[in-house]
Amino acid sequence: MSQSKTVNRRLVLASRPHGAPTAENFRQEEHPIPQADEGQVVLRTVFLSLDPYMRGRMSDAPSYAAPVQIGEVMTGGAVSRVVSSRHPDFQEGDWVLGSTGWQDYSAVAGDSVKKLDPRIADHPSLALGVLGMPGFTAFMGLLDIGDPQPGETVVVAAATGPVGSLVGQIAKIKGCRAVGIAGGEEKCRYAQEEFGFDACIDHRAEDFAEQLKAACPDGIDVYYENVGGKVFDAVMPLLNTKARIPVCGLVSQYNATNLPDGPDRLPLLAGMILRKRLRVQGFIIFDDYGHRYDEFAAQMGEWFDAGKIAFREDITEGLENAPDALIGLLEGKNFGKVVVRVGEDE
Amino acid sequence: MSQSKTVNRRLVLASRPHGAPTAENFRQEEHPIPQADEGQVVLRTVFLSLDPYMRGRMSDAPSYAAPVQIGEVMTGGAVSRVVSSRHPDFQEGDWVLGSTGWQDYSAVAGDSVKKLDPRIADHPSLALGVLGMPGFTAFMGLLDIGDPQPGETVVVAAATGPVGSLVGQIAKIKGCRAVGIAGGEEKCRYAQEEFGFDACIDHRAEDFAEQLKAACPDGIDVYYENVGGKVFDAVMPLLNTKARIPVCGLVSQYNATNLPDGPDRLPLLAGMILRKRLRVQGFIIFDDYGHRYDEFAAQMGEWFDAGKIAFREDITEGLENAPDALIGLLEGKNFGKVVVRVGEDE
Repeated sequence: MSQSKTVNRRLVLASRPHGAPTAENFRQEEHPIPQADEGQVVLRTVFLSLDPYMRGRMSDAPSYAAPVQIGEVMTGGAVSRVVSSRHPDFQEGDWVLGSTGWQDYSAVAGDSVKKLDPRIADHPSLALGVLGMPGFTAFMGLLDIGDPQPGETVVVAAATGPVGSLVGQIAKIKGCRAVGIAGGEEKCRYAQEEFGFDACIDHRAEDFAEQLKAACPDGIDVYYENVGGKVFDAVMPLLNTKARIPVCGLVSQYNATNLPDGPDRLPLLAGMILRKRLRVQGFIIFDDYGHRYDEFAAQMGEWFDAGKIAFREDITEGLENAPDALIGLLEGKNFGKVVVRVGEDE
Repeated sequence: MSQSKTVNRRLVLASRPHGAPTAENFRQEEHPIPQADEGQVVLRTVFLSLDPYMRGRMSDAPSYAAPVQIGEVMTGGAVSRVVSSRHPDFQEGDWVLGSTGWQDYSAVAGDSVKKLDPRIADHPSLALGVLGMPGFTAFMGLLDIGDPQPGETVVVAAATGPVGSLVGQIAKIKGCRAVGIAGGEEKCRYAQEEFGFDACIDHRAEDFAEQLKAACPDGIDVYYENVGGKVFDAVMPLLNTKARIPVCGLVSQYNATNLPDGPDRLPLLAGMILRKRLRVQGFIIFDDYGHRYDEFAAQMGEWFDAGKIAFREDITEGLENAPDALIGLLEGKNFGKVVVRVGEDE
């Protein structure tokens, strides 16, 4: 079903998932298109971003952000067009970026959204990928916590995703060896050919750990953590003394309902942190680095304009398909940055 | 047996421990007193330092430092007197600090030892405690990685030991709430009365975790990790967002021969690092901070001279008792900095 001019479709959280989310956890509702109060703009969603963090918002387990409540619109960043404006800075037709969620239309404070850089008017969804939150996440986690030095080895999983692919490309710009991890041969080949990884290992391979070891002959100096699980298990023995581990995400465990069976390896990890003098640090991009967004935007814009940054999008058509696309994303089925085309971009 | 003027007793590693070390892992040998080559000094050990890291050197598991080989003298820092010198900077009778190990006499390069600050000539063993390696360890781990801010809560175990007691005192100097953990009521009382901890919790208490929680009403901002095990388990749920964990040691697990039973809590720790945006960082004091020793010496000397630093030593008499003292130290039986008086200090 395509976007209507009179009805606002909203995808709300119907129930909380136990384990992997299913279609039944979402419900589509139809509402009137909202009106703008003074200072607000009415937005029509064009591109909706889907990202792994959304799994966390579906649960009410303690986390860094409040969960979506049952019956509330699913949260999410989107690129939209201004339909009507009661804010002096916006006019009908403007492109904006905002946290407007899984719906066709929204009425939000003009001060809560950001006009897109005119440079990307011909490709506005980039504001949800390399030139937006995922790009910022890759940039700050790698450079500020990872602190990669020329000649060091940087490893990252989800190497064809928006964060992983950019971690690899920035690592190369910084003179590092970049080793990616991805699911399947096609993604691995793409990571090397299009994103410039020196090697990319298929985590589905039976000898994955041995292949990773062979691809990191000098060990691992920076492991950009976005998946956890068996990838981290394979990384652990390869970590060099004083390695840095920015912890950006743990997609492999978001759907887990129980801890794995023992033995309890918590003391093993603690002992490794001590003996190898690791720095392991979690971060939440806007909370921790919001004040440095301009620094990212300037540097990434420069690299992008110079043609140094490749990207890949995985577009899903239609808001109604967002639940399936998120479910697939959490299973690693996407190939590139997952974006839902909610409406026409005219 | 007291120190001889003709025989050099040496305590060597006889075998590697499986689990907790026993007396059989050590062997006492008698050797002639060594002679100085050109550039060397002959030293008579007066005070030998015993420290938890020595357990690691007894094993050949991969670690940050080479293990002591079977038949080699046990490694250790000591304060000694120069017996004879073939190095222009040293004279008979000088007090020096060096890594001369568990023996009465040693012949070492003059350039490998350090003259003691004359200010502590009346208390030379302090060079093994608050004014030496343990003090430096407390200082750098807390201030550089822990980065304590006024009003924050700092938690440390082994609160009457040389590192823990100093972590607490520096935390107080920095305007923090200092909560100690120690084994037994007597140590806990001492930590509060003599070292100024705001609270000190007995880890042997049945309701230890509840008591710790009650002592940290605003959560924990810095956990200075030197023990691991059940103390860390109790600390984990109390950690605040953006808490820092300098990992200095894990005494509770040094004697472990197996990982604990499951479930596997490694993903739990990883998830907590992510959600709470923790910074967890191991360090080895001289490897990581050797270049900042003067900074420590100047600041600690100033605090010490101003009477702001309390300390407590636990003196064992006689080199032959060093094995038992180390075994006790690893079980938390010591009460203060463990020093072996190997010889008279005249």
